[in-house]
Amino acid sequence: MRERGTRERSVVESILDEGLLCHVGVLDGDTPVVSPMAYANAGEALYLHGAPANRVLALLGSGMPACVTVTLLDGLVLARSAFHHSMNFRSVMLFGIGASVEDPAEKMAASTALLEHLARGRSGDARAPTPAELRATLVVRFPIDEGSAKVRTGGPKDEPEDLALSMWAGVIPIRLVAEAGVPEPGLPAGTATPPYAVEYPDRCAGDSFGAPERPGLLP
Amino acid sequence: MRERGTRERSVVESILDEGLLCHVGVLDGDTPVVSPMAYANAGEALYLHGAPANRVLALLGSGMPACVTVTLLDGLVLARSAFHHSMNFRSVMLFGIGASVEDPAEKMAASTALLEHLARGRSGDARAPTPAELRATLVVRFPIDEGSAKVRTGGPKDEPEDLALSMWAGVIPIRLVAEAGVPEPGLPAGTATPPYAVEYPDRCAGDSFGAPERPGLLP
Repeated sequence: MRERGTRERSVVESILDEGLLCHVGVLDGDTPVVSPMAYANAGEALYLHGAPANRVLALLGSGMPACVTVTLLDGLVLARSAFHHSMNFRSVMLFGIGASVEDPAEKMAASTALLEHLARGRSGDARAPTPAELRATLVVRFPIDEGSAKVRTGGPKDEPEDLALSMWAGVIPIRLVAEAGVPEPGLPAGTATPPYAVEYPDRCAGDSFGAPERPGLLP
Repeated sequence: MRERGTRERSVVESILDEGLLCHVGVLDGDTPVVSPMAYANAGEALYLHGAPANRVLALLGSGMPACVTVTLLDGLVLARSAFHHSMNFRSVMLFGIGASVEDPAEKMAASTALLEHLARGRSGDARAPTPAELRATLVVRFPIDEGSAKVRTGGPKDEPEDLALSMWAGVIPIRLVAEAGVPEPGLPAGTATPPYAVEYPDRCAGDSFGAPERPGLLP
């Protein structure tokens, strides 16, 4: 089996730690809606945030069943046969019911978690949210309770009778990479460039993101 | 406005052409499910395929309302204030009702479109599906009729009073890149390596994928 499902917590965690975007699925009337969003993995739950006018986020925080999926694409799998073409990927699908976060302290913790998920160390470098900004932000907590990961790795799974065909087969590895940060025009003279804006960590390698500290993010 | 919605067909098409994965949202009982899938942009519709046992794909082909979303992440937007952190992205959200494709000729055309979407030229290099393989493949057509694109570009949108703060702000560009293909062990001697396995085209640049030919893919 090159594709396998697992509920192993460490696999789920590593995918959630590496991903930058999730896709949130909720029902809007009779219609499913799937919307991309940033998130933070706070260990027991994901935090998502946005404007209160964000309809999908508001639905997610309103207590209806939802699905949050994080997918990392690792490669294109080119088989001898058209039929066995595939992709290597790692994904996590979480099911549950989100809740709007009202407590200002938890909203502040969520803001920190969201910045740290984006770039480790960023929350200490950015200007913290004001009480008014926290009030103007809808924060939703989504539990990491029910769900599973799916992982496909390795080469194509061709039929034995196709192996002698003289056509190329293999995997084209795919990676998400970051380039050097592009500073805003007009930064004050002497503004230090933080390490993550010089060379953003390879999230996949986990040297800076793989084992995040999550000290007391969830009150 | 750094984030804008549009229904412009050329923007929608370019995002669908560049993407490799979509996220399919359907209702399974009372629960929305969001699943990553490969797809092909065939101009008037997307094609998706998989095993008949793939539950989300079967639901998508069963005539219920669904949402298909394609998201491309372009950058991390680091503002002076925590509040204004964001991401640059391009996404397309399509709404509609999928249909299972039963006609073998259209299934064959979909197989070709799926391989060409993965790597231009691949359908001519791979062994074509047999009638039995076509029968063993569930192909779903999803219309490109209703939906829109959302695009965020540019730097952070900070408050005027934060601009003098001496903290770094800017954009960390993010790109999906392909590495040189890793051939399967035991390819027959003299097997030619196709150009896309040596240097996979930069889909974003559009030199090989931006203006795809779609001759008669939809009967």
